[in-house]
Amino acid sequence: MISSDYTRSLFLTDSDTRIVLLVVDGLGGLPHSETGRSELETANLPHLDALCARGSSGLISPLGPGFTPGSGPAHLALFGYDPWTTAIGRGALSGLGLGLDFEPGDVAARLNFCTVDGAGKVTDRRAGRIPTELCEQLCALLQQISIPGIEVTVAPEMEYRAAVIFRGPGLSDGVTDSDPQVTGQAPLPLQASSATDERMVEVANEFLSQVGKILVEQSPANMVLIRGFGRYPELPSMQQVYGLHPVGIAGYPMYRGIASVVGMDTPETDWDVDAEFDLLQQRWRTCAEEDFYYVHVKKTDSAGEDGDFDKKVHLLQELDARIPRILELEPDVLIVTGDHSTPSVMGGHSWHPVPTVIASKAGFPMPEAQLTERSCAAGALGQIPSTALMALALAHAQRLAKFGA
Amino acid sequence: MISSDYTRSLFLTDSDTRIVLLVVDGLGGLPHSETGRSELETANLPHLDALCARGSSGLISPLGPGFTPGSGPAHLALFGYDPWTTAIGRGALSGLGLGLDFEPGDVAARLNFCTVDGAGKVTDRRAGRIPTELCEQLCALLQQISIPGIEVTVAPEMEYRAAVIFRGPGLSDGVTDSDPQVTGQAPLPLQASSATDERMVEVANEFLSQVGKILVEQSPANMVLIRGFGRYPELPSMQQVYGLHPVGIAGYPMYRGIASVVGMDTPETDWDVDAEFDLLQQRWRTCAEEDFYYVHVKKTDSAGEDGDFDKKVHLLQELDARIPRILELEPDVLIVTGDHSTPSVMGGHSWHPVPTVIASKAGFPMPEAQLTERSCAAGALGQIPSTALMALALAHAQRLAKFGA
Repeated sequence: MISSDYTRSLFLTDSDTRIVLLVVDGLGGLPHSETGRSELETANLPHLDALCARGSSGLISPLGPGFTPGSGPAHLALFGYDPWTTAIGRGALSGLGLGLDFEPGDVAARLNFCTVDGAGKVTDRRAGRIPTELCEQLCALLQQISIPGIEVTVAPEMEYRAAVIFRGPGLSDGVTDSDPQVTGQAPLPLQASSATDERMVEVANEFLSQVGKILVEQSPANMVLIRGFGRYPELPSMQQVYGLHPVGIAGYPMYRGIASVVGMDTPETDWDVDAEFDLLQQRWRTCAEEDFYYVHVKKTDSAGEDGDFDKKVHLLQELDARIPRILELEPDVLIVTGDHSTPSVMGGHSWHPVPTVIASKAGFPMPEAQLTERSCAAGALGQIPSTALMALALAHAQRLAKFGA
Repeated sequence: MISSDYTRSLFLTDSDTRIVLLVVDGLGGLPHSETGRSELETANLPHLDALCARGSSGLISPLGPGFTPGSGPAHLALFGYDPWTTAIGRGALSGLGLGLDFEPGDVAARLNFCTVDGAGKVTDRRAGRIPTELCEQLCALLQQISIPGIEVTVAPEMEYRAAVIFRGPGLSDGVTDSDPQVTGQAPLPLQASSATDERMVEVANEFLSQVGKILVEQSPANMVLIRGFGRYPELPSMQQVYGLHPVGIAGYPMYRGIASVVGMDTPETDWDVDAEFDLLQQRWRTCAEEDFYYVHVKKTDSAGEDGDFDKKVHLLQELDARIPRILELEPDVLIVTGDHSTPSVMGGHSWHPVPTVIASKAGFPMPEAQLTERSCAAGALGQIPSTALMALALAHAQRLAKFGA
């Protein structure tokens, strides 16, 4: 609804209010089995709790009850885009995640280095999990590939994983994978979904043919499997939809990638919170036109994924101590939330809704409120979809007109 | 969303976790005018409250705020099917409700015994509310009806109500009712919605013609009105949608009927909770493949319908005392909820959302929580549609993959 025809005319573009959306990755958690308290309940978070006491708190759900999102859909929901229908292909996410030169019209795909025998049959789909350094060397070798009219970029990820980006006229992503998913079979022939995808199949086959020749002596990584073809996602930008001038501040390339897909300016920065907050302060003070700041904190999610409850608590406290650095900018609206929950006790993303606070002059303060799962469950915002957050952000920033007379 | 193309690939079918969905019919209530406490608040329910304390509680709404469901839509919502668009015709519900031999391709309709005068005009649409015994005798008479190529089954319901099932090639349900809704008029001629429904009109007219001849001397019940034509509902099964092997344990035939429509195995059992729990335990221990158990408790709803507050309280306490029989099976997920609320003070179904608890290892315990309307309103699940419950059930059973990367 947020970006529908009904709402688009309601967004006020002549406002000078400014919004900070601080996304603490994997923010929500679950109780520790010994203490019965979650990470947020265990941590001492005086600044975040004070925000809840003076702001409006609640829980947001990226995909609705029960469904666990990846980072891509979870962020799209935060930015107000339907996470179910705004799918971004795996290849495209890799391209974005690596921070590669990846633009509208380009097609990305994932590559796995693999081992094939003399008959061309796959004997190891991961090439013995070659180290990342070797992956980097092999990707450099593959840069010699030349296809007339097409620019090819091959970039390493972790271990045996890499990505390729094709640039040129007439490319598309309706192409099947070559990965047979089992060993003892040859890679599958690529198939076009429709006639318009045949050029892409032709280009990808030429790519695979040259890969085979270049890698022939490089056993165990003497071939690649290709999968997850995906075009650069072409979405209406946040400027088009909301009339905002958004900036994405994220150390980790994938989040800059997702931010750029929705039209944010995405200056490079280091991973750590101090570097990100330095950049926020600098942009805030020097770029008067910018009015929406997405700031991404990654390490809390990693701690949750690692099942490291104490580390997540520690990182939350470190973050809390730095909240005054945002407050001193006096944003009209400060939202602190997460893209999804990553309970340490589960060691991964989960479906549990995410504690959220919106601090502005139009909030509904609850003096006892805290930024915890249980407190936010009883907050003034209620339990709402993550996609509803942007409308609330704009409303609190007085950037949303009345609908109807 | 639960059964959409987006979500279907997320259901993990190789899990060995097992889910029990205990549906306490008409569970929710309203406060007694003298005590200010609802049925659930009045009853002493130590086991159900303990489930809430260690699980996640909330309120579920079958049709959204304000809309009161019948048992059919309420159950479809619980099983994750859209209760608004997954309509099951009244006739089909009757066929299911009577536990008749009713299969895909069959068409059912409701019959009301009525009185017609010498000119064929309806003088009493309910034939003086004949007793059920007479209804049974008349239905037996009508079994002599013979239509070439068509199998006809007539079955009594309560008082003047009965149902008919037609089986044979070319039948359909786009047929209008014959009930004129007022007295002093002849039954309305049946009309086909389209050319494909003409065969059904022909069959139904032949049926009505033979009914008229058989009943001519049976005043006051000397004719029937026919209405609510409905095909056997052909829905994707829970096995197709969720990859589950579901069993429906319900003493009352109508609930076995609804369960079988969504693909559950529905062994017969008696009405009482002990018999149902015996069957649950037996299936649990002998059928290793089964992984989803819907168990239906009927009498709480009947007490609410009768306006018998104290009886509903008593039945809730009887049920609570038997909850350990489920707990000893150690299900990975135990959900206790209702299909809808039936407040004794209203003497009927209502729109009020239904107290619900999900107990699993991934819950968000609230030590003070109870299975009451007021406590669940502040629960960790929030207030959600009943259709969201299946995704939560699967998530808590670790049967739902992450969406997107």
